[in-house]
Amino acid sequence: MAAGERAEEPLAELSHYVVARPIYSEAGFQEENERRPPLPPTLRERAQAACRCSRKRAFQIARSFLPILEWLPNYRVKEWLISDVISGVSTGLVATLQGLAYALLVAVPVGYGLYSAFFPILTYFFLGTSRHISVGPFPVVSLMVGSVVLSMAPDDNFLIDGSNATGTNGTGTLIDTESRDAQRVLIASTLTFLVGILQVIFGVLQIGFIVRYLADPLVGGFTTAAAFQVLVSQLKIVLNVSTKNYNGVLSIIYTIVATGISYAADLEKKYNAGIVKSIPRGFLPPEPPEVSLFSQMIAASFSIAIVAYAIAVSVGKVYATKYDYAIDGNQEFIAFGFSNIFSGAFSCFVATTALSRTAVQESTGGKTQVAGIISAGIVLISIVALGKLLEPLQKSVLAAVVIANLKGMFMQVFDVPRLWRQNKVDAMIWVFTCVASIILGLDLGLLAGLLFGLLTVVLRVQFPSWGGFGNIPGTDIYKKVKDYKNVIEPEGVKILKFSSPIFYANIDGLKSSLKSTVGFDAVKVYNKRLKALRKIQKLIKKGKLKATKNGIISEPGINNEAFETDEDPEDNEDLQVPTKEVEIQVDWNSELPVKVNIPKVPIHSLILDFGAVTFLDIVAVRSIKTIIREFERIDVRVYFASYQDNLISQLERSAFFDDIVRKDIFFLTVHDAVLYIRNQMTYSDNQDPIFEKISLMQESKEPIEFTETSHPDDELDVQEEAMRRLAS
Amino acid sequence: MAAGERAEEPLAELSHYVVARPIYSEAGFQEENERRPPLPPTLRERAQAACRCSRKRAFQIARSFLPILEWLPNYRVKEWLISDVISGVSTGLVATLQGLAYALLVAVPVGYGLYSAFFPILTYFFLGTSRHISVGPFPVVSLMVGSVVLSMAPDDNFLIDGSNATGTNGTGTLIDTESRDAQRVLIASTLTFLVGILQVIFGVLQIGFIVRYLADPLVGGFTTAAAFQVLVSQLKIVLNVSTKNYNGVLSIIYTIVATGISYAADLEKKYNAGIVKSIPRGFLPPEPPEVSLFSQMIAASFSIAIVAYAIAVSVGKVYATKYDYAIDGNQEFIAFGFSNIFSGAFSCFVATTALSRTAVQESTGGKTQVAGIISAGIVLISIVALGKLLEPLQKSVLAAVVIANLKGMFMQVFDVPRLWRQNKVDAMIWVFTCVASIILGLDLGLLAGLLFGLLTVVLRVQFPSWGGFGNIPGTDIYKKVKDYKNVIEPEGVKILKFSSPIFYANIDGLKSSLKSTVGFDAVKVYNKRLKALRKIQKLIKKGKLKATKNGIISEPGINNEAFETDEDPEDNEDLQVPTKEVEIQVDWNSELPVKVNIPKVPIHSLILDFGAVTFLDIVAVRSIKTIIREFERIDVRVYFASYQDNLISQLERSAFFDDIVRKDIFFLTVHDAVLYIRNQMTYSDNQDPIFEKISLMQESKEPIEFTETSHPDDELDVQEEAMRRLAS
Repeated sequence: MAAGERAEEPLAELSHYVVARPIYSEAGFQEENERRPPLPPTLRERAQAACRCSRKRAFQIARSFLPILEWLPNYRVKEWLISDVISGVSTGLVATLQGLAYALLVAVPVGYGLYSAFFPILTYFFLGTSRHISVGPFPVVSLMVGSVVLSMAPDDNFLIDGSNATGTNGTGTLIDTESRDAQRVLIASTLTFLVGILQVIFGVLQIGFIVRYLADPLVGGFTTAAAFQVLVSQLKIVLNVSTKNYNGVLSIIYTIVATGISYAADLEKKYNAGIVKSIPRGFLPPEPPEVSLFSQMIAASFSIAIVAYAIAVSVGKVYATKYDYAIDGNQEFIAFGFSNIFSGAFSCFVATTALSRTAVQESTGGKTQVAGIISAGIVLISIVALGKLLEPLQKSVLAAVVIANLKGMFMQVFDVPRLWRQNKVDAMIWVFTCVASIILGLDLGLLAGLLFGLLTVVLRVQFPSWGGFGNIPGTDIYKKVKDYKNVIEPEGVKILKFSSPIFYANIDGLKSSLKSTVGFDAVKVYNKRLKALRKIQKLIKKGKLKATKNGIISEPGINNEAFETDEDPEDNEDLQVPTKEVEIQVDWNSELPVKVNIPKVPIHSLILDFGAVTFLDIVAVRSIKTIIREFERIDVRVYFASYQDNLISQLERSAFFDDIVRKDIFFLTVHDAVLYIRNQMTYSDNQDPIFEKISLMQESKEPIEFTETSHPDDELDVQEEAMRRLAS
Repeated sequence: MAAGERAEEPLAELSHYVVARPIYSEAGFQEENERRPPLPPTLRERAQAACRCSRKRAFQIARSFLPILEWLPNYRVKEWLISDVISGVSTGLVATLQGLAYALLVAVPVGYGLYSAFFPILTYFFLGTSRHISVGPFPVVSLMVGSVVLSMAPDDNFLIDGSNATGTNGTGTLIDTESRDAQRVLIASTLTFLVGILQVIFGVLQIGFIVRYLADPLVGGFTTAAAFQVLVSQLKIVLNVSTKNYNGVLSIIYTIVATGISYAADLEKKYNAGIVKSIPRGFLPPEPPEVSLFSQMIAASFSIAIVAYAIAVSVGKVYATKYDYAIDGNQEFIAFGFSNIFSGAFSCFVATTALSRTAVQESTGGKTQVAGIISAGIVLISIVALGKLLEPLQKSVLAAVVIANLKGMFMQVFDVPRLWRQNKVDAMIWVFTCVASIILGLDLGLLAGLLFGLLTVVLRVQFPSWGGFGNIPGTDIYKKVKDYKNVIEPEGVKILKFSSPIFYANIDGLKSSLKSTVGFDAVKVYNKRLKALRKIQKLIKKGKLKATKNGIISEPGINNEAFETDEDPEDNEDLQVPTKEVEIQVDWNSELPVKVNIPKVPIHSLILDFGAVTFLDIVAVRSIKTIIREFERIDVRVYFASYQDNLISQLERSAFFDDIVRKDIFFLTVHDAVLYIRNQMTYSDNQDPIFEKISLMQESKEPIEFTETSHPDDELDVQEEAMRRLAS
C-alpha cells in the first residue's frame, strides 16, 4: 500500500472543478469560537427553568453550591457506613503523621500541621464534589508556603542579644523562637487566606481551564525541582540527629512506633537532638489575616493556588473516572477556596490532597466524604488528647517521612533522555522549568515555565514547515516534491503549502518561503522589467529598436554598444507619477535587446494550499492581498485551495475582495485549481491582442511613462505600515 | 460554480486506496525546523572560501562589519555630491530644530538635543546599511527615555530651602535646576549607553526577528498611547505662555522665524515665559555611564532598544525597496548599538530616525549617508556658532513643534471600529496595548502588549474550530455537516476534523469535541457494558438467561423483576484484577435483558482528519493512543487521514506504534479511508465466530471475570499523569 498503488485515473476524466461555498445559514456565519460544545445553562436560563417550581428551584440552586445536598440524602447507611468508618480511622492516622511532618516544610511549629489536617475537611465535606480525595496538607505545596514564610520571616529578624540571657553557652546571640514562630504562623495563615480568595475568584470566573497550561513536561520539571528543594530543606533537620541513631531512625520511618523509641531513648537529653516540643492542645481562636502582607505574597499565592488546585483535581479525577461520577472543576475551585479561607482563619496552611493519603482512604473502603470527616475526627483526637504523647517525636523522624516520599520524584530525571528523543521541545520545557524552579524558587519558576511553554507553542506555530507540492501521477493527490519520488509539478504552476496559521509573527516567513519556492522576487522582477521597458522605449524613440508581432527586435545593422548597462542603481530620473499607461508586449523570458538582468519567471500560476491555515490576522490578510497584486503585475495568477470553511467570511469582513481579487480564485482542492488552470490555458486566446497597442506606441509622439512602485506604503511591506506611521 | 457542479463520479470508480509514505531519504527524516530556506554561510564556510585569497578575505570581513567600505569607493562624486550637499544642508536645519524640540520630551536642557542630532550620525556613517535614513532623535523614543528620567530624577529630589535664597518671591522652596539637570543628563546618557549595549547584543545574537512580534495593531495602540503621553507632557510647556501670545505662537509653529519674534517681543521679561536659556556652546568631554543605574533601567532599556530599532528599520526598508538595495537587519542592530554607546558617552539620548526628517533628506536629493554626515555638519555649526542666537527661542514654540506632529497618531483611534469589524482579536490587541501603555507607561505597556499578542496566538490555536464531516455526493470531497447542504456521512463512520495543532493546552478540547461529535463517551460505554456483562453472567449462572446464537435471551416464564437496577453507583464488588478473559457476543445496540443504561454506539469506524494538525506534543501523542485504545475496546476502529508528512516520523520517535496501533490506520485522504472501510465491511466475515465461546461460558463452572479499567493511570487522562506523580 505505498504511494502509487492507487488505481490509475486519466486526468482527463477528472477534468471538472467546483468552487463550493458553505451555505451561509446562521451556522455558516457563526464565529469560529461559537462552534464549541454548548455551554452549561446560564444563571438566567437556570432561573427561568427553575421558576416553574419554586420549591424545586431553591433546592437546585442550593445543590449546585452545596453538593452535599445531592449525595448525603442518598447515603446508604447499611452498606457504606462501616467501610467509611474503617477508612476514616486509617486515613486519620496517616493524616496526623503527615500533618506533623509537612508542618516542617512550612517552617511552623508542627502542631499547626494537625490543624491543617483538620479544618479544611470540614468545609470540603459540604462543598466538594470528589467523594474519595483526602483533603489536607501536601509536601510540594507546603514547601511553597514555607519558602514564602522563610523569605518574609527569616531567623535573622528575630535575633536577641544572648549575652544577657541566662543559660546560653556564650554564643552571643539567640533566636527569639517564640515571636519568630508566631510571625511565621501569621504569614502562613495569611497566605492560605489569600490563596483561598484567589481560588474562589478563579472558580467564580470559571477559569478552571487554566490548569491545562500545566503541561506534562512542565509538571515533571517542577516536581523534580520541588523534590530537590524539599530534600535540601529537610536534610539539615535529619542531620541534626547524631549518626549513632541515624540508621535506626531511617529504618522505621513509616511507624508511629518511632515516637515510642524517641521517647524511650530520651534523645533530647543525651544528644540535644531537635524534638517536637510544642504541640498545642485544644484550639486557638480564629484570627484575622494580616491584610497588609497581601501585596508581598500575591505572586506566590497565584502559583500556590493553581498548583494546589491542579493536584487536587487530577487526583480526584482518577477516582471519579474509576467510580463513574463527575467532578465539577469550577466547584472544586470554590470548595478549596472556601476551605483555605476558613482554615486560614484558624492558623492553618494551604490544603490540597495527597495521592498517597487518598489511596489509603479509597483502598480501605472509603465510599464518600463521610470517611473524610471521620479522618478529621481522628486528627481532632490527636489535637485535644494525644498532643502530649506526640511531643517527644523527633523532628528528624518527620523529616525522614518527608524525604522518603521523594524517591519517585527524583526518578523522573531519567525520563529526560527519552523525552529528548521523542520530542525536543517538550524536553526543553522540562529542563527549563526544573532549572527555573530551582533558581527562581518554586512559585516564580512555575510561572516562568508556564510562559516558556506558551512561547514554545508560539514558536512552533511561527516556524512551520513549508514546501513546493506536486502531483502523484494518476491521482488527485499532491505531496511535497522534496519528500516523494515521482511527484510531478504541473508545468507553469507552483504549489506552495504553508503548514500554519498566518499572523504577524510569521508573515515574513510566508514571504521568504514563497520567494524560495518560486525562485524569484515578484517585486524585483517587476521593477527590473519596468526599467527595461523604459530603456526599450527610449531605443524605439531613437529608432534603434522596433516592436513587431514577434516581440521587440533590434534593427539590423545596429549593434548593442549603444545600449545602457545595468550598473546604474540610481536610475530614477523617470520615477515620476505616470501620465498614462501603455502596455508593450515583451517576452520576458527570452533574450532581451537591452542589458538588464531580469530574473526568469517560469510560471504562470501559483497555488497556495491553505489546508493548515486555520486563522489569519489583519496583517496576514493585507499581506496576502499585496502578494496577489505583486504576482498579478508580472502575469502570475494566484489561486487558493483547500481553504477552511470560515476563511471566506473572515476575508469578506476584512475587505479582502475587490475587482482584482475575486472569489473565483478559491478552490476546494489543489487538484480542482490545477484542472481549472489547465482548462484556462487550453481555451485561452493565443492570439496577440496587444499588437495594435505596439503600433500605437511606435507612432506616438509623446514619451510614454510606465507605472512604478510609486507608493511604497501601498505596495510593500504592509506589516510595517503602522511602524512607519509611528515614525512620521 | 457551487458545490455539486463537479461532474458525477460513481464511487465505485474511485474504489481504491493508498497509504503513501514519504521516501525516508535524508530529507524525509529531517526535522521540521530544518526545512527552511538555506541559512547564510557559517563563519567556517566563509573562512574556508576566503582562504583562497587572503587579501580578499580581510576585505570581505571588514566589509561585512563596515558597510562604508562597500559603498564609499563606488561613490560617484560628479553625479551625487551636489545632491548630497543640498540634501544635507536642508536635513541639518530640520535636525537642529527637531533636536532642540525632542530634548523637551527627554526633560533635559534643549542643547543636549543638538548633541543627539550630531554624534550618532558619525558612527552610523561607517556602520549603517541604509543610504537614506536620517539618524537622530525621535519623539516617541525621546518620550520613553524621558519617562525614565522623570521617574528616577523627579523635581522633588532637588528642592532647596528657598527662604534663605536671595531674589525669590517667598515661595519657600526652589528647585536646584542645575544639579537636577546634571542628574537628568546623566540618567539619559546612561540609559542610551545601556540601550546601545542591548542593541549590539541583539545584533550579535542575530535576533532581529524579534521586531516581528510588534504586530500592526500593537504598534497602532502603542503609538496612540505615546501621542497621548507626549501631548500631556508638552501641553503644560505650551500653556506656560500667557494666553495673549498663545494664538500668535501657534500660528507660526513651523518657522524658525519664531525665534526672532520671541527675541523681539522679549517675552521673558514681560510674561516670565520659559525660554531656552542654556544652549551649551562647544562640546562637553565624554563621560562614563553611571553603571550603578543599569539595574533600575533594564526593563525600560529593553523596550526602548526594540522600538528604536524597529522604527529605524521599517523606515529604512521603505527606501531600500524603492531604490532596490538590501538592508541587513542584524547589521542595523549593531550600527545603532554602537551609535548609542558612542553618543551615550557624549551625553546624548537614544538615536533612531524619524520618517519626516528622512523624507526631507531623500526628497531633497540625498543619495547616500554623505548627506547624513553633512547634516551633522550643519548641526555642529549650530552647536559651536549659533547657540547664542537660539537662546531666546521659546520652549513653547518647541513644544508646539512636537504637538503638531501628533495629529496623525491620534487619528489612528478612528481605525479601531473598522478593525473590530474586521478582526476582533486584532482590535483587542490594539485597545489592550493602548490602555496598558497609558496606565503602565510606554516601556512596560509595550511589553504587556507584546505578551498579550502572543497569548492571543496561543488562545487561537488552543480553541480551534472542529466538526463532523461528510461526503459531497459524487465527489471525493468531505465538508462540515453543519455548514453544507446535501453532505452525507458514510453509514457507521464518523469523520472529525480538528483544525489546530494538538498539544497540552487543547487536548481536552479534542476529547470533548470527539465526544460531542460521536455522541457518546467511549470509556463510559465500555464500563457500562462490563457491568452489564457481569450481570448477564450472574443471570446465566442462575439459569435466568441463555446465550444463543441470536444473542442473549431471557428464559421464557421468567420476568424481569429479579433483575438488578442501574441505581447502584458503587457496584464494585467484582472490581478485582481479572483472572481470564472470555468474550460474550452481545448486540449492544439492541434491548438488553438487564436494566443497565448503555449508550448506543451507532458507528464502527472513526476517521480523524489531521490536515490541520501541524505538530503534536508528547501529551497529545499519548492521549491519541489512549483514544484509539478506548474506542478499540468498544469495537470502533480509529483511522487517520490527510496527515502532514512529518507526522509519521514524529509518531515513530514517540513510540506511538505497537501491536494494536499500526501504521495501516493512516491514509492519505479521508476518501481513501472511507473506501478502505467500505471495502472491509463488504468482505468481512459476517459469520459469528464467537458462538463457541458463548457455549463455553454457559458450561463454565468457575465465575468468569471481565477486564475493567483497573489501571486508571494507564487508561485515562494521561495529561495528568505527571500531576498525579507529583501528588504521590
